[in-house]
Amino acid sequence: MTSTSELHAHLMGIDTHEEPIAYLSSDCDICRAEGFAANTRLRIQAGERSLIATLNTVSPAILAADKIGFSDSAWAYLGLRRGQRLQVSHAPLVPSLSALHKKIYGHRLDPEEINGIIRDIKHRLYSDIEISSFLTANAAGKPSVAEITALTYAMVNCGNRLHWPEGRKIYDKHCIGGLPGNRTTPIVVAIASAAGLTIPKTSSRAITSPAGTADTMEVLTQVDLTLEQLRAVVTETGACLAAGGEVGLSPTDDLLIRIERALSLDSPGQLVASVLSKKVAAGSTHVLIDMPVGPTAKLRNQLEAEQLATLFYRVAEPLQIKLRCVLTDGSQAIGYGVGPVQEARDILAVLRNEPDAPEDLRERSLYLSAQLLAMAGEAPYEQARDQAREILASGLAWQQFQSICAAQGGLKKFAEGAHQSELRAQCQGQLISMDNRRLARLAKLAGAPSSPEAGLHLRVKTGNLVAPGQPLATLYAATPGELAYAREYFHHNPNIFAIGRPP
Amino acid sequence: MTSTSELHAHLMGIDTHEEPIAYLSSDCDICRAEGFAANTRLRIQAGERSLIATLNTVSPAILAADKIGFSDSAWAYLGLRRGQRLQVSHAPLVPSLSALHKKIYGHRLDPEEINGIIRDIKHRLYSDIEISSFLTANAAGKPSVAEITALTYAMVNCGNRLHWPEGRKIYDKHCIGGLPGNRTTPIVVAIASAAGLTIPKTSSRAITSPAGTADTMEVLTQVDLTLEQLRAVVTETGACLAAGGEVGLSPTDDLLIRIERALSLDSPGQLVASVLSKKVAAGSTHVLIDMPVGPTAKLRNQLEAEQLATLFYRVAEPLQIKLRCVLTDGSQAIGYGVGPVQEARDILAVLRNEPDAPEDLRERSLYLSAQLLAMAGEAPYEQARDQAREILASGLAWQQFQSICAAQGGLKKFAEGAHQSELRAQCQGQLISMDNRRLARLAKLAGAPSSPEAGLHLRVKTGNLVAPGQPLATLYAATPGELAYAREYFHHNPNIFAIGRPP
Repeated sequence: MTSTSELHAHLMGIDTHEEPIAYLSSDCDICRAEGFAANTRLRIQAGERSLIATLNTVSPAILAADKIGFSDSAWAYLGLRRGQRLQVSHAPLVPSLSALHKKIYGHRLDPEEINGIIRDIKHRLYSDIEISSFLTANAAGKPSVAEITALTYAMVNCGNRLHWPEGRKIYDKHCIGGLPGNRTTPIVVAIASAAGLTIPKTSSRAITSPAGTADTMEVLTQVDLTLEQLRAVVTETGACLAAGGEVGLSPTDDLLIRIERALSLDSPGQLVASVLSKKVAAGSTHVLIDMPVGPTAKLRNQLEAEQLATLFYRVAEPLQIKLRCVLTDGSQAIGYGVGPVQEARDILAVLRNEPDAPEDLRERSLYLSAQLLAMAGEAPYEQARDQAREILASGLAWQQFQSICAAQGGLKKFAEGAHQSELRAQCQGQLISMDNRRLARLAKLAGAPSSPEAGLHLRVKTGNLVAPGQPLATLYAATPGELAYAREYFHHNPNIFAIGRPP
Repeated sequence: MTSTSELHAHLMGIDTHEEPIAYLSSDCDICRAEGFAANTRLRIQAGERSLIATLNTVSPAILAADKIGFSDSAWAYLGLRRGQRLQVSHAPLVPSLSALHKKIYGHRLDPEEINGIIRDIKHRLYSDIEISSFLTANAAGKPSVAEITALTYAMVNCGNRLHWPEGRKIYDKHCIGGLPGNRTTPIVVAIASAAGLTIPKTSSRAITSPAGTADTMEVLTQVDLTLEQLRAVVTETGACLAAGGEVGLSPTDDLLIRIERALSLDSPGQLVASVLSKKVAAGSTHVLIDMPVGPTAKLRNQLEAEQLATLFYRVAEPLQIKLRCVLTDGSQAIGYGVGPVQEARDILAVLRNEPDAPEDLRERSLYLSAQLLAMAGEAPYEQARDQAREILASGLAWQQFQSICAAQGGLKKFAEGAHQSELRAQCQGQLISMDNRRLARLAKLAGAPSSPEAGLHLRVKTGNLVAPGQPLATLYAATPGELAYAREYFHHNPNIFAIGRPP
């Protein structure tokens, strides 16, 4: 339809997360005349910007008939001001839906078709259920390497790109996640850049975990850098530790990840395209992938891990990225801290060579740093490991970390959680295992990451002998309510720490 | 989580269609303590009833911190009263999602797994994006006959069933749709039941079309019958012409159809399960399926139609339904009327043997009636056709139709649309074709079916010669605005009626 109607913009004060919702009074003339009803897809035109929103009709008591209300995210995306005049019409047919149907019915898509889908998702033409359908079809359709490569490029083309001098090697290190406290990135970046590697690291905030690297780094310094600020930090120090969101590398991926998480759908093809699109956009030439394997980690066994690694290698090749996947132990949380502040403490302890620094976090960071250095140089792994160890032990890594933070706006001070409580063992024995998923949930219930000080400080590791009443972990929270809530979860899930007979 | 929080129910006055949405103030303690945020899935317990809703957080100006708001459909489903105290907690893991993931990754599901998915959808545990994922996975996974049969049974088990005396043959006639004005059902039911067949017909209201059989029949009589009323009407007359919604046969199918339509996804497996679940629930033993084939119909060619028919036959067999699929001409609208009142006029004209009754509607109804009679008796088709023709011509069918309407509450009177306008030919020539989809859209823009009097009265059929300015159709609407809006659509889409050179 070419016919449109004019209405005045109104901010409803409703946060629908990313899904754009428009609200019209059920007795407005336009609804009647245009046949708009609840669930109609509307095209909203506001000056240069436009978006497709789903309509909710509301009681006339809530909204005047000449107004159109918007959810927070729709309002922000359109950059509206109160009372602004808008054109509203039936949403046009989304051009790429025919390609989506083709994919559903088992056909291969060519790069142009995949581009079309990603472009339409970027332009907010897809509803959440359409994005869900795309992700499901893509998981079910077992995409080919060519399709995953095309998907990766399509996502790169939708966002910003970092360009570096011709021929320069650009490094990156990525963990596929799922292991609480596994915050090696800041340490690895410090060591690798102290050794002369260029490693412009952008990290995401937590989506379902109690902390992402960006959340933890935010405790220590500024992480929301513009593209220009990021370039300046890297020019000065050879590295950065920034949040990915602001920089806008592969932003469409974030729209997909939101629905993937809601569906608990983590298909290998989508995961590979998601990770590699951010690397290509960052201009990376050498990428190290940390893959923790364990019964409660994302990858449950060796076979799953090897299949994923193979897919990574096959897609990285046409993208001209030199890749190394390393399988690591994913049987328990790393370090002592879970949650932004607690993890930041661990990182500082390792970088400062403090005697009580968590050994597992240190050794893992050294291992990954050495892998990166070995990729970079002609030196064998053993030599690279000695080099990494020397950089950390000498204080060079700590000095380099401070330089990066200084370039990003300075090292911040941070506080402990206001409320704390011990989680104690109920019986005697040996700690056999930790449930990574429930441990993460526990820290989230305490308020992490939105309260950075909330989380856990682990007091034991698997293999330790424990006595009844001995503290297993200290719980931190910003409010007594959250502390009580997390304690109750622990009470109902004592098997987070599985205690068995001593050997 | 077992922890819950108590809040007071509040009706927001927001129609989100079927998707249940809950609203909480962003500064309420519970959001903080429980970690609820926009998009969190919540479990709402209200006495005996419970449901899973998606959370929208709202400005404190809209909702007090001790209240929880609900969308219209969530409020109705929970049967709430204002201020009622409710328990709210994190939604539990939906048990059948693991089966959904299995399906996504290409595995076959057993009947228990399919039952679990349909049961969870019925209990409103699935979000719209999860339903979308299920429908997509099911379309992409090319379900086996065993899976479609299990899906059919699962949907039957979620609703009411009609039981008839042992050994009695129960007939049904179904059209897969897509052809405006193809309202043969009331005529076929009258003829078949006049011939002694038991045909307890329930029909749906329009979902995307300008009229469903239930919308058209509602112009003529009461269609919202309870299960008891329906049984009484069938006992008295051998037939009924009721709306499906009230009776509750395979109600979960309606939740699926809503998302299928939004995705324009019409997978053969889902279609067959949808149709046959309603027939099994109605206790049908003999089912006739009308499949219009044409370039702008749902089935575009012979091959598509035959593939669908084959699937229908294969699934009907284990369900012990005797099935007959008939392919019919789907090249243009049937009868003169499009929209509830206009179609009702056509039906009455045929039943009353009026001289200007639409011949195509009459012949098609006779053809389908004869197919049903042939299925029933041992007589060949030619004899059944003579019988059907005699029942119609003698006035027996009209008498029987009046009896059915009387048993359902009496024959109603109805009025013409208040506003009308002629759609005229712009050139001379022969009418080559009609675009069924755009014709349906035109009638909907005029207000059909929510305004029953809105719609079209066609003045020409393909093959007719037309002169410039000659009326092609009369447009009816309840308001001048809708009339103007539909006219404008016609102005932009003159090819709805394709006029070519005369032969």
